Amino acid sequence: MNIGIFGTGAVARALGAKFLELGHSVVFGTRDVQTTLARAESDGYGNIPFSQWKKVHPSAKLSTFKEAASHGEILVNATSGSGSLAALQAAGKENLKGKILIDIANPLDFSKGFPPSLTVCNTDSLAEQIQRAFPDLRVVKTLNTMNATVMVNPGFVPGDHSVFISGNDPQAKKTVTDILHGWLGWRTSNIIDLGDITTARATEMLLPIWVRLFGLLKNPNINFHIAIGAPPRRP
Amino acid sequence: MNIGIFGTGAVARALGAKFLELGHSVVFGTRDVQTTLARAESDGYGNIPFSQWKKVHPSAKLSTFKEAASHGEILVNATSGSGSLAALQAAGKENLKGKILIDIANPLDFSKGFPPSLTVCNTDSLAEQIQRAFPDLRVVKTLNTMNATVMVNPGFVPGDHSVFISGNDPQAKKTVTDILHGWLGWRTSNIIDLGDITTARATEMLLPIWVRLFGLLKNPNINFHIAIGAPPRRP
Repeated sequence: MNIGIFGTGAVARALGAKFLELGHSVVFGTRDVQTTLARAESDGYGNIPFSQWKKVHPSAKLSTFKEAASHGEILVNATSGSGSLAALQAAGKENLKGKILIDIANPLDFSKGFPPSLTVCNTDSLAEQIQRAFPDLRVVKTLNTMNATVMVNPGFVPGDHSVFISGNDPQAKKTVTDILHGWLGWRTSNIIDLGDITTARATEMLLPIWVRLFGLLKNPNINFHIAIGAPPRRP
Repeated sequence: MNIGIFGTGAVARALGAKFLELGHSVVFGTRDVQTTLARAESDGYGNIPFSQWKKVHPSAKLSTFKEAASHGEILVNATSGSGSLAALQAAGKENLKGKILIDIANPLDFSKGFPPSLTVCNTDSLAEQIQRAFPDLRVVKTLNTMNATVMVNPGFVPGDHSVFISGNDPQAKKTVTDILHGWLGWRTSNIIDLGDITTARATEMLLPIWVRLFGLLKNPNINFHIAIGAPPRRP
């Protein structure tokens, strides 16, 4: 399948590498291809330069947001939350129309340092902002509540733990569920469809505790599990 | 030990009953004792009237917020989030000074129906509002991320699952940890001290996903577990 991934950071690379390994055709989209390829230093998260990563993944293609969107039957938003809407505008409505966007970005605000707050939350979400701006795009929010390593290797965290899905289009959510299970290895019992796109507020609002736990445990390989007891007896 | 509990709803009753069972002296505080006792109908959550509950728990005392505060060596805020600051004002600063407040309230806004949003979040929290209004109170936010049944019966939800603690006073957090473990039965490995009172933002922001999961599963006996994998290898 042809896949377009917006972004070139850790999340984009983890998913891109997995999709390539499975034999799919992946185009990464970036704002300025030359700038991205010219970077010679690791980024603030310790990721090696994309040009270096690309040498180990020679079948990965790097292009503009527009070409990544045009290439992809399935699209992935792995940009930073602050850059997501601009990236999608650059991709062009005509290249997004009718497609599924797996939205993994979080609206993190690092302007006041660590821990970040959210730029939007509570009564709105980044996923809803994207869905409103691109009504013909089928936005499915998922995977945004964990580290890139865990996204593509759920078995890396022992036991059961959860991945959430939010979106308005049932068929798009079915396709994304198949990708989570069949391609990434998530047990179907751990995939929780929370409901429509407004439920993305709830998963984006998990980020504040995620970053606190990361700061506390010094370990990004953590995930949320919803433990369930017996329901109350009704009289 | 003498304990003062602000509130008379499901959370107040679950904790009060547990404390009474352990031989502690409990005074529940309410805005208007006569009004609370005069209620003859179950509340919106299906809880029987307090007067009826009190018949099954004859050693439970009901009084004003002021007398509950004055009675308690340890205090519990089990009021609704929208009524918490008013309840504490009514209790009186002089009756709160130096005491530990176990703050379980959440700033839920039901004015637009279900699911509720939060009245405060992201860059502030109810726990911080309380701590700022009563600087001599030792606020410890905990237990606010689960149903009352689970708070006092962690074994009701199978397996490991977490209870979070936030607060500025290490000794107060130690005392609350002892209560969670020794009185309520939480495994110490499942008690996570997130840090100072600002970390209460993160746990109050778990409520949006809690209410969505409750709506989805029709089961309030759920809890969050933090699943932890191996940390990344450092080069």
